Amino acid sequence: MKHIESVKNNKVKQWKKLHKKKEREQSGTFLIEGFHLIEEALKIDGLIEEIIVADDRSIPSDWNLNNVELIYAVPNVLKELSETETPQGIVAICRIPKSNDEAIKPNQRLLFLDNVQDPGNVGTMIRTADAAGLDLVILGEGCADLYSSKVIRSTQGSLFHLPIIRGNLSEWIQKAKEQEIPVYGTSLQNGIPYNEITPSESFALILGNEGKGMAEEHLNETDQNLYIPIFGQSESLNVGVAAGILMYYLRG
Amino acid sequence: MKHIESVKNNKVKQWKKLHKKKEREQSGTFLIEGFHLIEEALKIDGLIEEIIVADDRSIPSDWNLNNVELIYAVPNVLKELSETETPQGIVAICRIPKSNDEAIKPNQRLLFLDNVQDPGNVGTMIRTADAAGLDLVILGEGCADLYSSKVIRSTQGSLFHLPIIRGNLSEWIQKAKEQEIPVYGTSLQNGIPYNEITPSESFALILGNEGKGMAEEHLNETDQNLYIPIFGQSESLNVGVAAGILMYYLRG
Repeated sequence: MKHIESVKNNKVKQWKKLHKKKEREQSGTFLIEGFHLIEEALKIDGLIEEIIVADDRSIPSDWNLNNVELIYAVPNVLKELSETETPQGIVAICRIPKSNDEAIKPNQRLLFLDNVQDPGNVGTMIRTADAAGLDLVILGEGCADLYSSKVIRSTQGSLFHLPIIRGNLSEWIQKAKEQEIPVYGTSLQNGIPYNEITPSESFALILGNEGKGMAEEHLNETDQNLYIPIFGQSESLNVGVAAGILMYYLRG
Repeated sequence: MKHIESVKNNKVKQWKKLHKKKEREQSGTFLIEGFHLIEEALKIDGLIEEIIVADDRSIPSDWNLNNVELIYAVPNVLKELSETETPQGIVAICRIPKSNDEAIKPNQRLLFLDNVQDPGNVGTMIRTADAAGLDLVILGEGCADLYSSKVIRSTQGSLFHLPIIRGNLSEWIQKAKEQEIPVYGTSLQNGIPYNEITPSESFALILGNEGKGMAEEHLNETDQNLYIPIFGQSESLNVGVAAGILMYYLRG
């Protein structure tokens, strides 16, 4: 069993670099932390490469660690690798899944994000998409990086529950249309109230940037654009809240 | 016109203390920052006492500054008073409204929060309550402080649009019932799916703590408890998202 004694260990330096997007992309790996997330990740065969755990913590006995390297380390190493205020003393190094040829099938429910920049919003929307039983999430141009610690944390593990793909939004809108899935954009100014749509077994819903909304280009590619009526004096809804209202309404 | 030259000025030290809840309660004042929030606050007569603005910024000409003291300061003072990463160079000192004898009227829509601890969640729910046209928000035991900078920021100004009261949740549940307003709790385990309820013109909706949900005590005081079905593998929804789905559903 490997044991790491110091934060100056080369492995620790390498792992810590995974806090940066560029390093994640170069190495094809990302870092997750905490018992709950690692437990979720272990359910996917071959996702986790290494688990690093503090000497003063223990691995739950029901974890299946086939093909996973388990490394113990002094607690300071785990503090060094953590990006949270209260580290749980355990992290794992995971492989970024290869961008497979995920295809859209008929009758699916899809969430497309256009330039959603806040990591908490992206993560929360993935969590809600999972809860609402959606089949696929597409992260279009300008979205926060899926493998940043804040996005991962906000998904609460849902990033391991459904396929999430970075892609070109116009192409994916086209693919949805080819499967005869209705594509709904969202806009504060134009479109129709969401509840004029009849819920159906399939849809592609697009949410846009926190400040600017969806790009004009994509608003013109949809079958219909929707808005959520504002009954009070606020100017808009949080995009994650809007996504939740729409996903649960549309699925009926 | 007053001008402040240094971050060591006594006034600056006093204002900065308003970042702490205890100081806000002792002084009966709180601090807001940014042009948008201050513009919203100016619409309420007598709310703002003082506006402090950096020498390199200017006050929009259409602001009505009756009864408001305007103070200029060197930009460093504004950096000192700000709690954001990109300060806008303007803050205002506001009076905490006296807890008036706000009463529940028949046919109102109400949001009650039970021990919601995350300031972002509390702020987002107030913003959504405003958007959904609710009449009143009650912050029960254990909720994040309404006047903390993060709650204020997350409301996006909605804290100035509807009455928000700290109170004893059991008492307010009772007051709602006296007006024949149906009281709905939320629970992951018990209750009925929310969409079995017929939307109506009035309701009191209660959301609970991020981890533990609503207190058992309050779950027993409601007319009906609701849950949002989970169709995928996630364990729960973000509480702010759940609140949005329910408020928009219930108002019909």
